[in-house]
Amino acid sequence: MPEKERSIKDFKQLISLLKEKHICKRAVVVWSEDSHTQEAVSLAAHEGFIKPILICSETTRNTFAQKEGFETIIVDSPEEASRKAVALIREKQADIIMKGFVNTDVLLRAILDKELGILPKGAVLTHIAVAKLAEYNKLIFFTDAAVIPYPTDEQRKAQVQYLVDFCHAFNITCPKISLIHCSEKVDTKHFPHTANYLTLKEDAKAGVFGKCEIDGPLDLKTSCSKEAMEIKQINSPINGEADALIFPNIESGNLFYKTITLFCHAEVAGVLQGTMAPVVLPSRGDTITSKLYSLALASLIVK
Amino acid sequence: MPEKERSIKDFKQLISLLKEKHICKRAVVVWSEDSHTQEAVSLAAHEGFIKPILICSETTRNTFAQKEGFETIIVDSPEEASRKAVALIREKQADIIMKGFVNTDVLLRAILDKELGILPKGAVLTHIAVAKLAEYNKLIFFTDAAVIPYPTDEQRKAQVQYLVDFCHAFNITCPKISLIHCSEKVDTKHFPHTANYLTLKEDAKAGVFGKCEIDGPLDLKTSCSKEAMEIKQINSPINGEADALIFPNIESGNLFYKTITLFCHAEVAGVLQGTMAPVVLPSRGDTITSKLYSLALASLIVK
Repeated sequence: MPEKERSIKDFKQLISLLKEKHICKRAVVVWSEDSHTQEAVSLAAHEGFIKPILICSETTRNTFAQKEGFETIIVDSPEEASRKAVALIREKQADIIMKGFVNTDVLLRAILDKELGILPKGAVLTHIAVAKLAEYNKLIFFTDAAVIPYPTDEQRKAQVQYLVDFCHAFNITCPKISLIHCSEKVDTKHFPHTANYLTLKEDAKAGVFGKCEIDGPLDLKTSCSKEAMEIKQINSPINGEADALIFPNIESGNLFYKTITLFCHAEVAGVLQGTMAPVVLPSRGDTITSKLYSLALASLIVK
Repeated sequence: MPEKERSIKDFKQLISLLKEKHICKRAVVVWSEDSHTQEAVSLAAHEGFIKPILICSETTRNTFAQKEGFETIIVDSPEEASRKAVALIREKQADIIMKGFVNTDVLLRAILDKELGILPKGAVLTHIAVAKLAEYNKLIFFTDAAVIPYPTDEQRKAQVQYLVDFCHAFNITCPKISLIHCSEKVDTKHFPHTANYLTLKEDAKAGVFGKCEIDGPLDLKTSCSKEAMEIKQINSPINGEADALIFPNIESGNLFYKTITLFCHAEVAGVLQGTMAPVVLPSRGDTITSKLYSLALASLIVK
């Protein structure tokens, strides 16, 4: 198998893949006034997979941007920066949006604007993340840690499709998607989402999502540990080596994200999906590395 | 401050405390037919904080129990073992129940039996766990990973009381209880539990739970990291050093339990509360050490 067809197992391999494929995407950075954002963008530009367009103040242009030789658009406020970034996506003059020193609410307002925004009618806006854990020998994709409180059946179907598409982009030809619950029992009375899980499995068998294996409800251990699967005597195509996890609700998704970053030294990247272009929307506590990896993820999955 | 008044920061200190206080509780072990259960019980007995009463087969008596010199009651089935164990608690001939090689359903049926069981009318049955993580310099208590799907306001109030009582038993004089959510915003429309969180804070101020600090909604990072708290510019009495976490639902509680054991090498102990005696109810995948620590936890919190 040629190198580029191998599945991507960590973030270094992701960046290598971007280089091999000579991928370089135009990332518009919304109000790039803070040093964390600037450092992440510099790193990505030096790696070669990002061509930044900074929407920023004159000060930032005269200092950081000129030194780096980055293209700039001068605006007066985070609000103006947000509107401008969204306009560039609509005009196909940029491929990715990255949040800088702007409140999430402000940027989302511009993104979700019914007339001028970039969420197509009927599209499902959701957050997709991918993590590398020391204790797991592959990347693990998951949704949703940040956007949809309690996914409807339709939203969850869209989430599964995003995960499958992401995994395919990472050369995981037949991704194993696990539908997470606290146990392996379908219990439609207490946990209506477990009924939806059955529908998703049928959809997968009918080929709705493309090539993949989907199973659930499964708990995290059964999804990610062959040993746990054997102890519970469970037979699942996931085989304790899930590539991606669907969480039942935002509390569990968010908790997974925060537990692995706080207690497991996980490296994590994340983007919004559903919009006309991927949106890199880091939290205030995210590391520069996490922002860099998020830009790499966005670059690979730009359509 | 004398040694025994210091707060307990890990499981070794817990076992030392039990020894110092000369605590030795009668633990009735339900159908103790598997080697994992037997090893955990042996270790606890050798440490001196457990006096086991094995409800088992004749074979187990003639081999394991006789060798160890443990008291036995011979029965024919896991069902009979469960009923017998519950009866011993009612007759005050035992202090703790531990599940052996019996299905959880079978044991719970005996525990919850309206006439012969050991859950007092109106008591809230819930699961309390405590973990030691390499990345956190104290124990962290949490609920509920196993029993209540979506706690009602009344159930959550009982959970807070259990956590406070547990922390006090661990000599944590003013425990910091964090009410977990995916963000710090109260949003009663999408997340009704955040309204309940406000009520719990008022109850705490009114002294309902005894000495403690309660705050929320807070996310996991803000609860357990001073740095994260500072980045978000949040002011909270939890101060990034929570002693205990209330999770909004079973999916998030269960996911936390499984993430820290699978990916963070956490040591975890757990018991059921609400019953007339603590119930040690290990999962099939739990380690012998985890079962030992659960027995230690149960011994300390027996009333």
